[in-house]
Amino acid sequence: NVTADDIIITSGGSEAVLFSFMSCLNPGDEIIVPEPAYANYMAFAISAGAKIRTIATTIEEGFSLPKVEKFEELINERTRAILICNPNNPTGYLYTRREMNQIRDLVKKYDLYLFSDEVYREYIYTGSPYISAMHLEGIEQNTILIDSVSKRYSECGIRVGALITKNPEIRKAVMKFCQARLSPPLIGQIVAEASLDAPEEYYRDVYDEYVERRKCLIDGLNRIPGVYSPIPMGAFYTVAKLPIDDSDKFCRWCLEEFNYEGETVMMAPASGFYTTPGAGRNQVRVAYVLKKHDLERALVVLAKALEAYPGRVEDDGL
Amino acid sequence: NVTADDIIITSGGSEAVLFSFMSCLNPGDEIIVPEPAYANYMAFAISAGAKIRTIATTIEEGFSLPKVEKFEELINERTRAILICNPNNPTGYLYTRREMNQIRDLVKKYDLYLFSDEVYREYIYTGSPYISAMHLEGIEQNTILIDSVSKRYSECGIRVGALITKNPEIRKAVMKFCQARLSPPLIGQIVAEASLDAPEEYYRDVYDEYVERRKCLIDGLNRIPGVYSPIPMGAFYTVAKLPIDDSDKFCRWCLEEFNYEGETVMMAPASGFYTTPGAGRNQVRVAYVLKKHDLERALVVLAKALEAYPGRVEDDGL
Repeated sequence: NVTADDIIITSGGSEAVLFSFMSCLNPGDEIIVPEPAYANYMAFAISAGAKIRTIATTIEEGFSLPKVEKFEELINERTRAILICNPNNPTGYLYTRREMNQIRDLVKKYDLYLFSDEVYREYIYTGSPYISAMHLEGIEQNTILIDSVSKRYSECGIRVGALITKNPEIRKAVMKFCQARLSPPLIGQIVAEASLDAPEEYYRDVYDEYVERRKCLIDGLNRIPGVYSPIPMGAFYTVAKLPIDDSDKFCRWCLEEFNYEGETVMMAPASGFYTTPGAGRNQVRVAYVLKKHDLERALVVLAKALEAYPGRVEDDGL
Repeated sequence: NVTADDIIITSGGSEAVLFSFMSCLNPGDEIIVPEPAYANYMAFAISAGAKIRTIATTIEEGFSLPKVEKFEELINERTRAILICNPNNPTGYLYTRREMNQIRDLVKKYDLYLFSDEVYREYIYTGSPYISAMHLEGIEQNTILIDSVSKRYSECGIRVGALITKNPEIRKAVMKFCQARLSPPLIGQIVAEASLDAPEEYYRDVYDEYVERRKCLIDGLNRIPGVYSPIPMGAFYTVAKLPIDDSDKFCRWCLEEFNYEGETVMMAPASGFYTTPGAGRNQVRVAYVLKKHDLERALVVLAKALEAYPGRVEDDGL
């Protein structure tokens, strides 16, 4: 039951994150974020003078949410918010109803803000209904939803997002930042509004395509010796474990020194998504935004790269 | 001798101001700004945790820059920058070579940054050559120019501006903020790039039109009893003194309670451009962005409004 009054259009989801931080947090305030996480949250927190405290999720547990006690270990008098990205970038993890209820209870108990980045929410590959932060009862005044048209309509670059909250005090503070920067991009807004008329088939075609790509990529990754990827339930990413010493080195080596029949693969080292030193060192984020045919080829090239890479480390089992 | 490497494209001039502050200032640092000034500088300073200290310019002196001593009274160990808007919003004042040299000497002597907002620099109605902050010798590493296509091509809302500096350290810091928010609006960038091909006549026609409008407005204002406007040398604004008690009240009254033959005038109370309490209370900012015919009519309506306004105060002479 969101109304137009609850929605403030922003210059991309990025600005919605920044304005959420600016409006709800004082310098020195802390935000708890499950890691691995989208790296730019950190930059926006620095801009707002706030501090991100991360709570580890692991590939071994499929990046599921840690127990309540782990959150409570981090909560102190400066803790003001929990930030989640659901479905998750970089892991593709989708929070279950049980996990969302756990977050709701924490938010309620400690009177925190819940920043919920749901820009990938159309990309969900499980039968069960999607649980948005806006569905959680009893924390309506604490919840700020971050949205964007970039992923929904493949409109990255038009810079149209939204900040959505039922809390009028937050909206009032956010509007001050909005008025200072005058307006989100006009032409982008016209494009975004027109995109709302996209027919049902558009979504269905896009969805079917991503389901195919996901199956192709995840099956293919898990068939490569020493590689492991959980099955992502949402978004269009996965974080995979590779038999390598250091993903920064490996990804750079793929681009600079390796090729197989004139081709190579470009991946994001997962280390950039962790703040814990050393975490994710043998993990990469793979985006399945290429056509299935190109993904199949990329899997062949990746397998060859892993065979040839001088820093290969045999997996100790999972 | 600016090169492409010196230019960083931003989401409007607004973001260029914000990123300048974020990149050059620490929380608590001070910026000296001649007032009246564009109100949103204040909002961006608050976002960056910086503090704006204003130095008064007066309508009686045509909004010319105060003496060096007045600046030096404000300079302390937290002073990090001077910000000017040239030609000025809201006054239309254009800094002379002597004034620009005075600013250069201050910047040099105290090793300050110079933020120079020159988004109106095509709108100059004096024969003498324009002195940009980028022309000032010996402070190349201290100077940051703020630019925008909004005024040049009447493209407000496409949100394409630029931050220009010869200082590579500043550019490096600014790029971190740029990378966090990903990109300025793509479609706006395409439009802005195409606009660079605007033919010579476009500028000439726009220029001639503004010269006409300026003459029409300023002559008309000064013919209304009790009204005084200096002659603005740039931009498309003037700050005029009216025979009224309070411009906030008067501007509101014009919109809510007054009409002449079914029409009224909308002006910006100048109080919003001052931080000094009470300053500009009998001043308004008038933008001459209407067609000459409409400006003529607006002058008639304004004269009638001033006759009818219950808070009229007779001018004590200028």
